[in-house]
Amino acid sequence: MESSFIAWLRTVSPPHPALGVGLGDDAAVLTVGGGGQLVVTTDLLTEGVDFLLAEHDPRRIGHKALAVNLSDLAAMAARPLAVVIALALPEQGGEKLARDLYAGILPLAARYGVAIAGGDTNTWAGGLAISITALGTPSPRGPLLRSGARPGDRILVTGTFGGSILGRHFDFEPRVAEALLLADRYELHAGIDVSDGLSLDLSRLAAESGCGASLDLAQIPVSAAAAQLAAQMADGRSALDHALSDGEDFELVLAVPPAVAEQILRDQPLAVPVTAIGEFVAEPGLWESSADGGRRPLVPRGYEH
Amino acid sequence: MESSFIAWLRTVSPPHPALGVGLGDDAAVLTVGGGGQLVVTTDLLTEGVDFLLAEHDPRRIGHKALAVNLSDLAAMAARPLAVVIALALPEQGGEKLARDLYAGILPLAARYGVAIAGGDTNTWAGGLAISITALGTPSPRGPLLRSGARPGDRILVTGTFGGSILGRHFDFEPRVAEALLLADRYELHAGIDVSDGLSLDLSRLAAESGCGASLDLAQIPVSAAAAQLAAQMADGRSALDHALSDGEDFELVLAVPPAVAEQILRDQPLAVPVTAIGEFVAEPGLWESSADGGRRPLVPRGYEH
Repeated sequence: MESSFIAWLRTVSPPHPALGVGLGDDAAVLTVGGGGQLVVTTDLLTEGVDFLLAEHDPRRIGHKALAVNLSDLAAMAARPLAVVIALALPEQGGEKLARDLYAGILPLAARYGVAIAGGDTNTWAGGLAISITALGTPSPRGPLLRSGARPGDRILVTGTFGGSILGRHFDFEPRVAEALLLADRYELHAGIDVSDGLSLDLSRLAAESGCGASLDLAQIPVSAAAAQLAAQMADGRSALDHALSDGEDFELVLAVPPAVAEQILRDQPLAVPVTAIGEFVAEPGLWESSADGGRRPLVPRGYEH
Repeated sequence: MESSFIAWLRTVSPPHPALGVGLGDDAAVLTVGGGGQLVVTTDLLTEGVDFLLAEHDPRRIGHKALAVNLSDLAAMAARPLAVVIALALPEQGGEKLARDLYAGILPLAARYGVAIAGGDTNTWAGGLAISITALGTPSPRGPLLRSGARPGDRILVTGTFGGSILGRHFDFEPRVAEALLLADRYELHAGIDVSDGLSLDLSRLAAESGCGASLDLAQIPVSAAAAQLAAQMADGRSALDHALSDGEDFELVLAVPPAVAEQILRDQPLAVPVTAIGEFVAEPGLWESSADGGRRPLVPRGYEH
């Protein structure tokens, strides 16, 4: 539902003078008093869709609920400032559950200096829903948008991809520090975090930028978890398939001018590897570069809301 | 649960340099880039607690979900700037429901120039939960807190109280324009909006200010709905009882220096009446002033979360 609904919402939500970037990016950019800019994002996690209370420790659920929001700020190269947290809790054991969720939220908030600026905590006859809104301040170079990629930019990614369901989808560390360091030291054109699948989220970034993306599949950094999952499942999907489509990797995908990309690859300035996996091209769509220098269409795969 | 949980959360949430006012007021006050201040609030409405889908038009539910947040901003004398909206929707008919909710949200947002700065819209096997976070900018005199009342200040209220369940609890207009006008023209010391009950919310404001409040019960502006409800229910509760405890009036309660209060009462600058209903006193607690000049304790009543 989400993409058609967002398309509709874009048509019915009037433009606003304070809204520099609105619906459709990882976060919105607002102009606030004093001319400062604020980056705003919200993510809602619901029981049965994003987690199972019977299976998952509430501290891991709390961590994830905050981490997905911080990952959206990282995708904009924004420094986290504050969050507000709304919890719809089951009546039975609701307060205990809330404290356990916060036991996962608070250490992550402390690690990135995020203020808990408020919340609303209600019980009801329904299941657990966690709605967090995160506020951040853009890096001095301004917010990193999805729409800034240009043909010829290299596609750089942090970390490795695939198999997040084996644990990473709960326990990942949002790439906040990595995004701030890169945005501080290097010229970046565009960014997105991978929540729904590397190929799908990359194709969204390319579409917002009005260009296409061509992947060198041999260069995709495939995680050990992706290989493990491919071996376990025996459904014919390779580790690379998992890396391209599993999602919830919460790594960064960046569009970077070629010379700057070379510099980043030489510097390797992060604790996680940075890898070049292809380039943005003029022709819209997602492509796989072939050994003969040509391109074949590649179908973006991932989680469609 | 809510008050004990908030007390716990206050102890475990570390102070933050950007957080001028944190948990426990109607909204938080954040210092953002450029030294500007931002007022942030969040309210969560859930099916079965705040509304019944079988009974209430989704447009009224959407209106209310935004209006309660704008009412919190009004209580801080903050000008609404933007909102983000998270919807947990039932799988069956979720998209239609979302559009109907927005049909109630968008006109109210347009009326107060509020940007829709983003959202998250998911379906799940559970019921409808609506989480809205509202951002505003404080009036030039700064945010109006709960903690600023002083003994001797008059208690002023907008509008009338009681019987909101007959319709006002859904269809109220948040007192945004009223709060901004009053904060612009007059010196106000403290404010709160009445969500849980006039006597309960007033006692909270007094407690946050470290003082008490003494009510002249004969001066409470009792709504026609309160009288109607008292007549219908025949449970011994008077119209005044309803006015003191029903809640969801979403009117403003203000602490105002005596001379300023006299001026406001003479000016009557709003389209709704402003009424003086008592004064703040040094002795903590809630009081009823008696004809002989003395005071009797009054038990705060209202909706306890």
